[in-house]
Amino acid sequence: MIGDEIHKFATKLWKINRSITGEGVRETLVHIKQLLPNLTIESVPSGKKVFDWVVPPEWHVSKAYIIAPDGKKICDFSINNLHLVGYSIPFHQKMRLEKLQKYLYSLPEQPKAIPYITSYYQERWGFCLTQEQRDALDDGVYEVVIDSKIFEGKLNYGELVLPGNSDQEILLSTYICHPSMANNELSGIAVATYLAKWLSELKVRRYTYRFIFIPETIGSIVYLSKNYIHLKKKVFAGFNISCVGDERSYSYIPSRNGNTISDKVAKHVLKWIDPDYESCTWLDRGSDERQYCSPGIDLPIASILRTKYGQYPEYHTSLDNLDNVVTPKGLDGGYWALRKALEIIEKNKIYKVNILCEPQLGKRGLYPTLSTKESGREVKTMMNLLSFCDGEHSILEISEKINVPAWDLYELVEKLILHDLISPI
Amino acid sequence: MIGDEIHKFATKLWKINRSITGEGVRETLVHIKQLLPNLTIESVPSGKKVFDWVVPPEWHVSKAYIIAPDGKKICDFSINNLHLVGYSIPFHQKMRLEKLQKYLYSLPEQPKAIPYITSYYQERWGFCLTQEQRDALDDGVYEVVIDSKIFEGKLNYGELVLPGNSDQEILLSTYICHPSMANNELSGIAVATYLAKWLSELKVRRYTYRFIFIPETIGSIVYLSKNYIHLKKKVFAGFNISCVGDERSYSYIPSRNGNTISDKVAKHVLKWIDPDYESCTWLDRGSDERQYCSPGIDLPIASILRTKYGQYPEYHTSLDNLDNVVTPKGLDGGYWALRKALEIIEKNKIYKVNILCEPQLGKRGLYPTLSTKESGREVKTMMNLLSFCDGEHSILEISEKINVPAWDLYELVEKLILHDLISPI
Amino acid sequence: MIGDEIHKFATKLWKINRSITGEGVRETLVHIKQLLPNLTIESVPSGKKVFDWVVPPEWHVSKAYIIAPDGKKICDFSINNLHLVGYSIPFHQKMRLEKLQKYLYSLPEQPKAIPYITSYYQERWGFCLTQEQRDALDDGVYEVVIDSKIFEGKLNYGELVLPGNSDQEILLSTYICHPSMANNELSGIAVATYLAKWLSELKVRRYTYRFIFIPETIGSIVYLSKNYIHLKKKVFAGFNISCVGDERSYSYIPSRNGNTISDKVAKHVLKWIDPDYESCTWLDRGSDERQYCSPGIDLPIASILRTKYGQYPEYHTSLDNLDNVVTPKGLDGGYWALRKALEIIEKNKIYKVNILCEPQLGKRGLYPTLSTKESGREVKTMMNLLSFCDGEHSILEISEKINVPAWDLYELVEKLILHDLISPI
Repeated sequence: MIGDEIHKFATKLWKINRSITGEGVRETLVHIKQLLPNLTIESVPSGKKVFDWVVPPEWHVSKAYIIAPDGKKICDFSINNLHLVGYSIPFHQKMRLEKLQKYLYSLPEQPKAIPYITSYYQERWGFCLTQEQRDALDDGVYEVVIDSKIFEGKLNYGELVLPGNSDQEILLSTYICHPSMANNELSGIAVATYLAKWLSELKVRRYTYRFIFIPETIGSIVYLSKNYIHLKKKVFAGFNISCVGDERSYSYIPSRNGNTISDKVAKHVLKWIDPDYESCTWLDRGSDERQYCSPGIDLPIASILRTKYGQYPEYHTSLDNLDNVVTPKGLDGGYWALRKALEIIEKNKIYKVNILCEPQLGKRGLYPTLSTKESGREVKTMMNLLSFCDGEHSILEISEKINVPAWDLYELVEKLILHDLISPI
Repeated sequence: MIGDEIHKFATKLWKINRSITGEGVRETLVHIKQLLPNLTIESVPSGKKVFDWVVPPEWHVSKAYIIAPDGKKICDFSINNLHLVGYSIPFHQKMRLEKLQKYLYSLPEQPKAIPYITSYYQERWGFCLTQEQRDALDDGVYEVVIDSKIFEGKLNYGELVLPGNSDQEILLSTYICHPSMANNELSGIAVATYLAKWLSELKVRRYTYRFIFIPETIGSIVYLSKNYIHLKKKVFAGFNISCVGDERSYSYIPSRNGNTISDKVAKHVLKWIDPDYESCTWLDRGSDERQYCSPGIDLPIASILRTKYGQYPEYHTSLDNLDNVVTPKGLDGGYWALRKALEIIEKNKIYKVNILCEPQLGKRGLYPTLSTKESGREVKTMMNLLSFCDGEHSILEISEKINVPAWDLYELVEKLILHDLISPI
Repeated sequence: MIGDEIHKFATKLWKINRSITGEGVRETLVHIKQLLPNLTIESVPSGKKVFDWVVPPEWHVSKAYIIAPDGKKICDFSINNLHLVGYSIPFHQKMRLEKLQKYLYSLPEQPKAIPYITSYYQERWGFCLTQEQRDALDDGVYEVVIDSKIFEGKLNYGELVLPGNSDQEILLSTYICHPSMANNELSGIAVATYLAKWLSELKVRRYTYRFIFIPETIGSIVYLSKNYIHLKKKVFAGFNISCVGDERSYSYIPSRNGNTISDKVAKHVLKWIDPDYESCTWLDRGSDERQYCSPGIDLPIASILRTKYGQYPEYHTSLDNLDNVVTPKGLDGGYWALRKALEIIEKNKIYKVNILCEPQLGKRGLYPTLSTKESGREVKTMMNLLSFCDGEHSILEISEKINVPAWDLYELVEKLILHDLISPI
């Protein structure tokens, strides 16, 4: 099961302190490059204007913790990077618990979870801790230590283009800005990496594949500001990859258009993998499809997920981990759902019969020669497929019409081509 | 509540003996003109050919009653104008009850109701009374007195055009031919009058509004025969206004086409005002939409109603009154449903974003700067709206797509224009 | 009831040993020609290439039976032609029961039924018998006698073209290759013959009708190989006629396109005849529509059936007979469903009103002159019909829109034409 390998890779990246910029992003990209040697690591400088936005300064944390009245360190960033609010400014001061409370974040309804909080675009500092930890704090004076730096640096992302026979592209995007968070987001990074590995090892690719590993929101805006004219011309399908690691469900988020090939393929795959998959709407969006599908950009990007962000209790807390939430089996399911979707796009040709009327399958050894009540059932799928090889219906459309998974047709198509009964148009 | 004013106005018109022609029509129009000074009162002569029809003679009643064997007056027109069958010819004769019965109309299943009966296109006379009154009639000789006149006069109607920035027109039609009948029809006259009053007081109207107050059927045929070429060119939306005064339900009757802007707006408004509104079909039609939408005329006229004609027990009886059936609250609901529909049409522009990708709402003070599990919900509607400002979707279409009432978007649209994030196209 | 006549005709054809070629086919066509004198009997020689197929040799059986160890004849072809596997080669040999068993066919789950088995395209011999007969066979030596001939002969079919005012054609196809089998197939032959008889006796036919009586599959392939260019140009509607003789249900099989006039008419007729009719899909096909609708042929052929082949227990067994399965009432229903469908196609014109707005029905004696709560209901259908005579909707489309069977409109259309209110366009 490839899910085991993917889970091991995710485990390697677990402790890295990712944010929208900084060392953690670069370290993550270096790990990915070990599996995808052709990955390029790009950068744009802080302060650069990208559409309506500005590339933020870089953030670096040397240490961050609080010393309690009893002298013990609490909320230590080196133990769990979620303890520090993302992009916290440098700060060093003693203060009474009463004042400190205003800078603490916890979840009363999830007393064992450290929440994940960031403040990218307003100067702030703060610490996150479990409600149980918070409730145990004694009155007294606390010493807050945040040795961080916010400075003009750069924003990094990774890019890998796998050329195919056609320069028409399939875009696959995942994000690399969340620290120790498993389903949202390590599952996306790990599954995307292994999909790229599989595709890079293929002898023939019909289409060109573009993988990007970017910080969410600002990263896709940066990337689009540099590449959207090219992407609008070439990208005809694609997926945003996120939350693909748990076992609880499968989900689909449409593109804004809702009717692109990406949408059709996603719905087809999920229907056959899990008839109870959750079909979301554009109103449920929440990741980089917001940028890819925005008016004027209009890329055909849909999402295939396991349990969607916001829809599971551990989301954006320390409980979204590689033990209880993301599993090898969950990652395996996410990987194969996306791989099956990509395979359909590769195989989705239009065929036309080479003869008029039904062929004589018998003389080709494709049909039982004794006609009984039961005979013919076994060749039904082949005949259904043939009946729609009219030069107008693609393999995906035919599979929908004849109510079988597209992948059940691949071998039959080969057989029919071999017997010269159909040809691609 | 504007329903109170509308109810008072309807009360003023209650006792007038309206029919398809005659003094009652003119008196009604004079009352309307007091609120709408620019209303013009038009006339066409009896005998004029209008399409397949001929303008009928005028009908005037001086008195009408029956003297019972005990000398008492019954069925007195001066007490309730419903007692006399509409367009009854002059008649004066004594006859036994047995013969008289053939000229009496009552409703056995509604023993306290006087039915409303007319005979426009065949010479007849008759009296209407409650079943209880009828059952109490003694044997003996009755003296029938109908002092009426049917003569070459004219058919009247009122017309009010409120010019807008565009000469594209919205047609609003209501009828003025039923005597003391509250929901069907006084509610229509009164609500239409107050809608015209509101529109005439607006500083800016995007579109031109055409209100007509006409006798049902023959009036719309007369009006169309004079104006249909102009109307076909200019009218892009409109409503027939009838049965808008009770509290029991909301209803919708489509145009024949069923998919005009009037239909879309009507369904949108009613869905948000009353999810249980009754959606009728073209087969349920029954008022002047029959003419406006007839083949070759094809105007986009739908109907927004409270409880539809024929669907409430008091319909076309003396029980359809301003006490039990039509109420200030009921009229208020009818007024606002139509006003909201007209407001949508006025506001229904198409906008396009001025920037690519999502805007940075934070720097504009439009977005919370601290990202938490809950944050973002409050700006969800704004982001959804923005995501469809693609130069292709109108405000009505966007409101349907993002599942909010159109009126929830008006203020957001203003805000986004103010921040230069969208522009009308 | 015409079903009685049709049943008698089917009874005449019952005992004939039909197959895809041979004397039984010709004898059947001669019987049909007695009712349809203009029928032509065509032939193509064995060995002729037709698309991907070759016309098979002719098959003739002189006698076929088995002599049991006790000297009695069993499985005698002269008693029931189903006993011999279709296209059995000549054979004469003694063998023990053990060996014979390999050449016997029976249905354990239907112990009183002789199955219907054929082997057109592979040389074989075999006998069919009931499971009860088989279970009663004693051990010992059996003498198998099959005096048959397989030789270069011809394949026959019948063709009848009934010219109409237009050279646009309606194709009606049924098959003549099953021996003593009632619903599948004698019902089709008999109903098709009586439909052709009815149409040939009409004084005026709007369209041209083409009836073909062919062996299934190879016959339609033969016919198409000779005529498909003409058919593609002229045929705009048509039905494959099969399984139209039992009383249990009505069914519909779409054309491959699914949205032709044949499909629309079939669904309309069946909806009004039997709201519970079984609506199949293209995936449920199984007769000559497989050829007529194949890619590149693309004829608009749908099927109206009673209980569909494969959907009743007696199918393809000796129990599919003219006593228990096919009845006069069942045939009557099949005949009328198809006749109503053809009548709709003949009547399916587009009309346009001659006047604007609703006509004054009163002056034409088409409308009650006294307006009461109830009045007008009786003319509702006429007014609904008129409201869609806009030069755009056909009679079939109008009947769907106003929710009445198309045949309810024929007389109203005549009336409206008579009063010069509508004209065909």
